[in-house]
Amino acid sequence: MNKERLQSLIDGASGKAICDLILKNGKIIDVFSGEILHESIAIKDGMIVGLGNQYKANAEIDLRGAYVAPGLIDSHIHIESTLATPKEFSKAATKHGITTVIMDPHEIGNVLGTEGLSYMLASTKNLPLDFQMMLPSCVPATQHETSGAVLSSEDLAPFYRHERVSGLAEIMDLPSVRETNDDMMKKLLDAQNHNKTIDGHGSGLSFMDNNIYRTAGIRTDHECTTLEEARDRLQKGFYIHIREGSVAKNFDAIIPLVNKNNHRRFTFCTDDIYIDDLYNHGSIDEMVRRAIRNNIDPIDAIRMATLNPAECYGLQRKGAVAPGYEADLVILNHLEEFEIRTVCKSGNLVWEENVLYYDFKDTELPTLANTIKLPKINIDQFKIATSTGSLNLIEVIPNSLLTNHLAMNYERHKEFKAEASDNLAKIFVIERHGNNGALGKGIVKGFHMMRGAVATTIAHDSHNLVAMGMNDADLHLAIKRIEEIGGGIVIADGGEIKAELKLDIAGLMSSETLEKISENMNKLNEASRSIFHEIDFNPFLTLSFLTLPVIPELKITDQGLYHMTEGRFISIDEILPVK
Amino acid sequence: MNKERLQSLIDGASGKAICDLILKNGKIIDVFSGEILHESIAIKDGMIVGLGNQYKANAEIDLRGAYVAPGLIDSHIHIESTLATPKEFSKAATKHGITTVIMDPHEIGNVLGTEGLSYMLASTKNLPLDFQMMLPSCVPATQHETSGAVLSSEDLAPFYRHERVSGLAEIMDLPSVRETNDDMMKKLLDAQNHNKTIDGHGSGLSFMDNNIYRTAGIRTDHECTTLEEARDRLQKGFYIHIREGSVAKNFDAIIPLVNKNNHRRFTFCTDDIYIDDLYNHGSIDEMVRRAIRNNIDPIDAIRMATLNPAECYGLQRKGAVAPGYEADLVILNHLEEFEIRTVCKSGNLVWEENVLYYDFKDTELPTLANTIKLPKINIDQFKIATSTGSLNLIEVIPNSLLTNHLAMNYERHKEFKAEASDNLAKIFVIERHGNNGALGKGIVKGFHMMRGAVATTIAHDSHNLVAMGMNDADLHLAIKRIEEIGGGIVIADGGEIKAELKLDIAGLMSSETLEKISENMNKLNEASRSIFHEIDFNPFLTLSFLTLPVIPELKITDQGLYHMTEGRFISIDEILPVK
Repeated sequence: MNKERLQSLIDGASGKAICDLILKNGKIIDVFSGEILHESIAIKDGMIVGLGNQYKANAEIDLRGAYVAPGLIDSHIHIESTLATPKEFSKAATKHGITTVIMDPHEIGNVLGTEGLSYMLASTKNLPLDFQMMLPSCVPATQHETSGAVLSSEDLAPFYRHERVSGLAEIMDLPSVRETNDDMMKKLLDAQNHNKTIDGHGSGLSFMDNNIYRTAGIRTDHECTTLEEARDRLQKGFYIHIREGSVAKNFDAIIPLVNKNNHRRFTFCTDDIYIDDLYNHGSIDEMVRRAIRNNIDPIDAIRMATLNPAECYGLQRKGAVAPGYEADLVILNHLEEFEIRTVCKSGNLVWEENVLYYDFKDTELPTLANTIKLPKINIDQFKIATSTGSLNLIEVIPNSLLTNHLAMNYERHKEFKAEASDNLAKIFVIERHGNNGALGKGIVKGFHMMRGAVATTIAHDSHNLVAMGMNDADLHLAIKRIEEIGGGIVIADGGEIKAELKLDIAGLMSSETLEKISENMNKLNEASRSIFHEIDFNPFLTLSFLTLPVIPELKITDQGLYHMTEGRFISIDEILPVK
Repeated sequence: MNKERLQSLIDGASGKAICDLILKNGKIIDVFSGEILHESIAIKDGMIVGLGNQYKANAEIDLRGAYVAPGLIDSHIHIESTLATPKEFSKAATKHGITTVIMDPHEIGNVLGTEGLSYMLASTKNLPLDFQMMLPSCVPATQHETSGAVLSSEDLAPFYRHERVSGLAEIMDLPSVRETNDDMMKKLLDAQNHNKTIDGHGSGLSFMDNNIYRTAGIRTDHECTTLEEARDRLQKGFYIHIREGSVAKNFDAIIPLVNKNNHRRFTFCTDDIYIDDLYNHGSIDEMVRRAIRNNIDPIDAIRMATLNPAECYGLQRKGAVAPGYEADLVILNHLEEFEIRTVCKSGNLVWEENVLYYDFKDTELPTLANTIKLPKINIDQFKIATSTGSLNLIEVIPNSLLTNHLAMNYERHKEFKAEASDNLAKIFVIERHGNNGALGKGIVKGFHMMRGAVATTIAHDSHNLVAMGMNDADLHLAIKRIEEIGGGIVIADGGEIKAELKLDIAGLMSSETLEKISENMNKLNEASRSIFHEIDFNPFLTLSFLTLPVIPELKITDQGLYHMTEGRFISIDEILPVK
């Protein structure tokens, strides 16, 4: 806010200046009183400057009794996981009434460091959706893989000067907090001393760990999967972000906890959601509808999506339909059904009756260099053999981030060949940030892969290249193609590229339109059905999480096979007790 | 918060270090869930570091089923109005469970400017009560009197660096906001750009004025006197601080508005309360009790005194009994009666069973120079006469800040003499900041003064010296005595000082103990009964507000008689239409 804007707003409020727009005959959903108000809304310069009938404006709209709710807020999202640019994301999100998101650019931060954060700030400007940024707290996520960047407290500190930075993003590194690691302390203190919010990541946290997190100043959690977890965290003072994304779905588990006495401590978030899923099925809006169907007072459900997250993140001018609040409005035909008719951002019409009215102009973005810096790959590097007569296997567990560690006997020094009948495939992770060209090898069981190869540069959390295949030629082809398109997801089979999605922004996001992304994802899904045999899980996602070494039991990074319980890397033919 | 403290706290939370204290067998009032928890509370370094039974500590207290509530917060108070130092105030306030106050040093700011603010920060350190400071926004309050200081935006800005500064204090200057005065805009922007809270002062604000205030970013109001005012301000997004002080009492008028759906937007405050009133009758604790008696859910009533003000002022570690929150605790025998047994601040015992346990050490305070810089007063200056045959009168309205303007005929050039039978007294305001030595003269009707004189250096808002009397000798004596004692309240009669309260700190606060202040106030009250004839209002307070020129109709400052409707000063014998 600057002086000219404040003066212009006050001139609107005092009637000295003509307003831009008056919305009359609406029913305002008042998140403060919990009542419905029958007042006209005067808007100027994108802000509500008055309620009442005494204003004049250049335009007037008769809402004919429609309800007016504040724009919705997604309290935790990784935009990169949508696969789309912030601009395309804005189109999809505003369709569903979402006008503000609290984003954590953790993925691009792992690839590009501060350049990635700056890119996300630049590419989220001047869109009809406000992107508040949390600063990624754990880059790299672990020491067991080669990330593209390191974000120290010193790297993050200058970002607090940016007006759209709302705090420190999800702390997932419990050991660093518990052991009071110096740089982690510095990150926590910088956020607190700026009076900003610190997000947690409570996956697997015990009741005692929750005490540690809260004492450290961590204020939110979006990883509750059970009622028991959520109840403990609520009582300890965490805001609970109820998560319902494309993969993790916790709404049904947590919503029974919410009632009149505690709802102010709950918000809604997606965490990770695909652009087509968001566009077609909604997210926060759908959670509001489901909350109402779960017998939550409609105005309380709306508060959970508006005032509550605004308060949690200190956004003093968001989350209500009242003077001094941004004119981010969702106009509804009915309250109980929360059926969205119109969406306005800063007083501008964005969507009405599912028609997009906002003119998304092309904005100039910082150019990002190619981030796919692979070493020279020789097909011979894909050879796997054992000198011990044993081979370690990663066994996937469908629809889980967990894996099992298995071992099998194999003839010494004979080249391993993946066989569909054994339900085995080769897997490789190749360092792609141009740091050391490391290559980790493994064998994976349980994908029901029949032929071909799949490769992707979405590989949590360091986003190296992960490729899985039944033959070396298709593996090599898929990897080469990824390099050519600057990152993405590729399926190769029989020496041909069968489908692909270009993720040319940091190997994570596509510069294409949401329609094109959706189309290519559909082609990838179709192609996957010809190389995988009737699987009931998403092969791309499962592959992208096989590289996350902090989750049990056996995972693979560019540094090799990481065994969680052993707490170390193991070689592919090392013999160790299998539980 | 610094690194060593954060590390030590986390070591407590993780069990690596022994805690200081465990409170077991208590019933925790959980302001988040609205439920009662049966958990042990582990405290280290003044902070709650864990809930649960897994902690070890150097001391353990068995609460035998008592309830544990968070320490109470007074959301708006002028410490100067208590007449006591922050140290004496702390004794009285903690007795009633108040462990945090949001203070506005408006009075001392008017006398001493930034020196006054620095004094209040220094004198509120290391006490068992947290004083968060709001920066006085309107010093001087008007141009119609001579204040001791001016506080511009430039003067205030550096104070935002202080960790106990929570925002900008009550904006009472509506015209400057409405007319978007440059320096007022700067003050508003500085607070907002630091993400701090801005308090309002909505006395007499219309519905449209409320739009202006909210648009300007003003977030709270403590001046609601009617349900209608409060409802409008609630709906427009103001936090409503329900006020019940020694003079203004709005609890009964506002409490019927509070319910399950809106209570999160309400807090309790005193604004102005005398130290003996606070000590003997309580304040926020009594409001909690009264709210419960008004059928507000006891936990909601407690939230209004704890979590709500903490959220309103961005105090992330206050307002709850949970890990990461300060160990400011009120221990209750019963919940419904809110009967306080024990008060702890930062884990230290302050009061138990009405016995003070905290050792208030003498702290070194900045020395304040004498602020009573009166001109040389000659008794002849008290002469009043008329050249027109008419004299203007201020008529007091009992128990109101408002006055009437009257006029009476009087013989030309004859010296006016105050007569008890006419219910008239002389009144003088003398500039006491050493700026210009101005003296304003007037006649006041309605005090039922019989003899003697009374003088005080509490004279809102510039706190010049105001003296009222029936004869010039006693007036002169009282004023001289004020000068001798460095400010205060004095009653003189028949050439003798009958009673006095020394207010040697800026002419506003006494360096005496609360018991001594109370004793002297009692003596003043007694002496007042011998010079005023059976009045049913507080003569000292009424006198202190006769100098506030922004309130109708006729007031007096060091510059003379100010007529509100005329919008200008009038001379004592000017003839103008009396309505």
